Amino acid sequence: MTKKSTSLHEDPIRHIVWKGDRLVVLDQRRLPRRVEYVTCRTARDVAKATTDMVLRGAPLIGCAAAYGMALAARRGRLKDVVAAEPVLRRARPTAVNLMHALDHMLAVAKSGPESSLPERMSAAAAKYWRDDLAFNATMAELGAALLKDGSNVITHCNAGALATAGIGTAVGMIRAGFLAGKVAHVYPCETRPYLQGSRLTLWELMQAGIPATLITDNMAAHLMKTHKIDAVIVGSDRIAANADVCNKIGTYGLAILAKHHGIPFYVVAPSTTVDLGTATGDLIPIEERSAAEVTEVFGTPIAPKGAKARHFAFDVTPHELVTAIVTERGVVSPADGATLKKVISR
Amino acid sequence: MTKKSTSLHEDPIRHIVWKGDRLVVLDQRRLPRRVEYVTCRTARDVAKATTDMVLRGAPLIGCAAAYGMALAARRGRLKDVVAAEPVLRRARPTAVNLMHALDHMLAVAKSGPESSLPERMSAAAAKYWRDDLAFNATMAELGAALLKDGSNVITHCNAGALATAGIGTAVGMIRAGFLAGKVAHVYPCETRPYLQGSRLTLWELMQAGIPATLITDNMAAHLMKTHKIDAVIVGSDRIAANADVCNKIGTYGLAILAKHHGIPFYVVAPSTTVDLGTATGDLIPIEERSAAEVTEVFGTPIAPKGAKARHFAFDVTPHELVTAIVTERGVVSPADGATLKKVISR
Repeated sequence: MTKKSTSLHEDPIRHIVWKGDRLVVLDQRRLPRRVEYVTCRTARDVAKATTDMVLRGAPLIGCAAAYGMALAARRGRLKDVVAAEPVLRRARPTAVNLMHALDHMLAVAKSGPESSLPERMSAAAAKYWRDDLAFNATMAELGAALLKDGSNVITHCNAGALATAGIGTAVGMIRAGFLAGKVAHVYPCETRPYLQGSRLTLWELMQAGIPATLITDNMAAHLMKTHKIDAVIVGSDRIAANADVCNKIGTYGLAILAKHHGIPFYVVAPSTTVDLGTATGDLIPIEERSAAEVTEVFGTPIAPKGAKARHFAFDVTPHELVTAIVTERGVVSPADGATLKKVISR
Repeated sequence: MTKKSTSLHEDPIRHIVWKGDRLVVLDQRRLPRRVEYVTCRTARDVAKATTDMVLRGAPLIGCAAAYGMALAARRGRLKDVVAAEPVLRRARPTAVNLMHALDHMLAVAKSGPESSLPERMSAAAAKYWRDDLAFNATMAELGAALLKDGSNVITHCNAGALATAGIGTAVGMIRAGFLAGKVAHVYPCETRPYLQGSRLTLWELMQAGIPATLITDNMAAHLMKTHKIDAVIVGSDRIAANADVCNKIGTYGLAILAKHHGIPFYVVAPSTTVDLGTATGDLIPIEERSAAEVTEVFGTPIAPKGAKARHFAFDVTPHELVTAIVTERGVVSPADGATLKKVISR
């Protein structure tokens, strides 16, 4: 499933594979212990895989949605594509890359005759995926340049290869930093409740041979105080026009802790994550998922019967707490709305 | 095992029961799903139960150690008590209540003839337990007076009945606050990796009929920003002479988040938790436990094979971040070393 590589321009994990008539998707829910694939033959299959978190990560959700639209186009009927679009759009509410991919693919669908619809859509989805892969490499290099030599880094959730088409956003920057001698050690937060940090990011880092030590989310402050931590690096699911950053639950707390300890806080995300149509972070819809994902771990109950729980899947970090946002179009530093808009609109 | 009660002066859970020739201890490791007891017949049994976390919570560790010394005294030989003392002292390094209880019991042992040793030690241990129970009630009332009506409260780990002889420290204050209409809703952080919040605190709150909703540790910042949170209330394992507070890992981060959001941060702990012999929090030994407790949840692996992890069991919150420390001898507010010493030395 994986191969060691030092190139920033490859996909180190073949986790979504386009087969022309179907999309084969690595099931991330049981990684790293079980390696299983789900085959999506329709846009509805892709929407379900997204909702159920077979695949996750904002850029990857966008790529999968693009392929979902290509699947909807296979019979050469524009109305199938138009009908598929809202089904995919409802799959998850927070990551704006999904909306961006759907807008783009709908425009492609309407840009030519139905006779060429399947080919056009398949080619556009594949290009959307290739673009994301290239964005990763660019961001990785721009981001690594911000780090000082021998840095100890904290990251959160999985903003790695499994969340994107290529080497990842935050983990891509870490990977490039490691290759350049700028990253010495990585501490991924486990990222409750879904454990993307322990299951996915730690696994990617181990595969890449990058020294990594797992911590629980609540150890980050202690580590910042007692160990030399030089940077916190995370991805994003949506960045508002004013540069507020929506990302996995726990990110906002980490940003406050970083500020308190004087540690730079970096966000790495492609321009497709920036939503200039949403003025501020407070306007971003925060998905709330099942309480069972908090009260159980892999089906094992960890709370009393009848326990109530909340499961906010994301939070919003105000731009004041962000040292820099790294996009493939450039670095926004310090992160503010005016600079972000200028960089993204290049 | 439990009974509903509105009294602050009772033990709502019979979780350590002195039988004269043995100490029966509720096994907290599998709570709330499994209710099992461990019988300790020797000081060594008590030390092992403490190390293995059959019982936990700083005040309860102290009470159990006192009974452990009483078990060592059963044959009426001072040398047995003297030999048991270091065995118990090594059981866990951070909670100072353990050291306090052992110093006290050793002094009792040396205060009279061997002929009365068993009776004196048994009576002294029982009194140590009763005192802790009474401290809980006093702290609960002093603490509740600090809260405003209808407060929403975050707590961390288990500083409840299961951690003490009586109604608990932080949870005792919450319980008294609830009875007085001052606590409307409680959000216990699950407290990874050992999940004392989801397994123990939530269960105690549900038993007491106090409205409670579980959150993962990394949701606290989002909750503070988006919901009305009026107080953070925690216990402590050791308070240094300068009022720095050592408590379960994650406490320090919560204190920073509370400060950032302008939310009062209260620490509730009996005077036996205060260690005037340790000048500052940085000098408190932080127990580091097995990495397996981070990489597995109830025996289910959540990280890749061969994963490295750190498991800091505690952290230290500088006194500047603490709004007030509630002890049975009075409230230290603002929390600083000079006031603490004055209150504790009353």
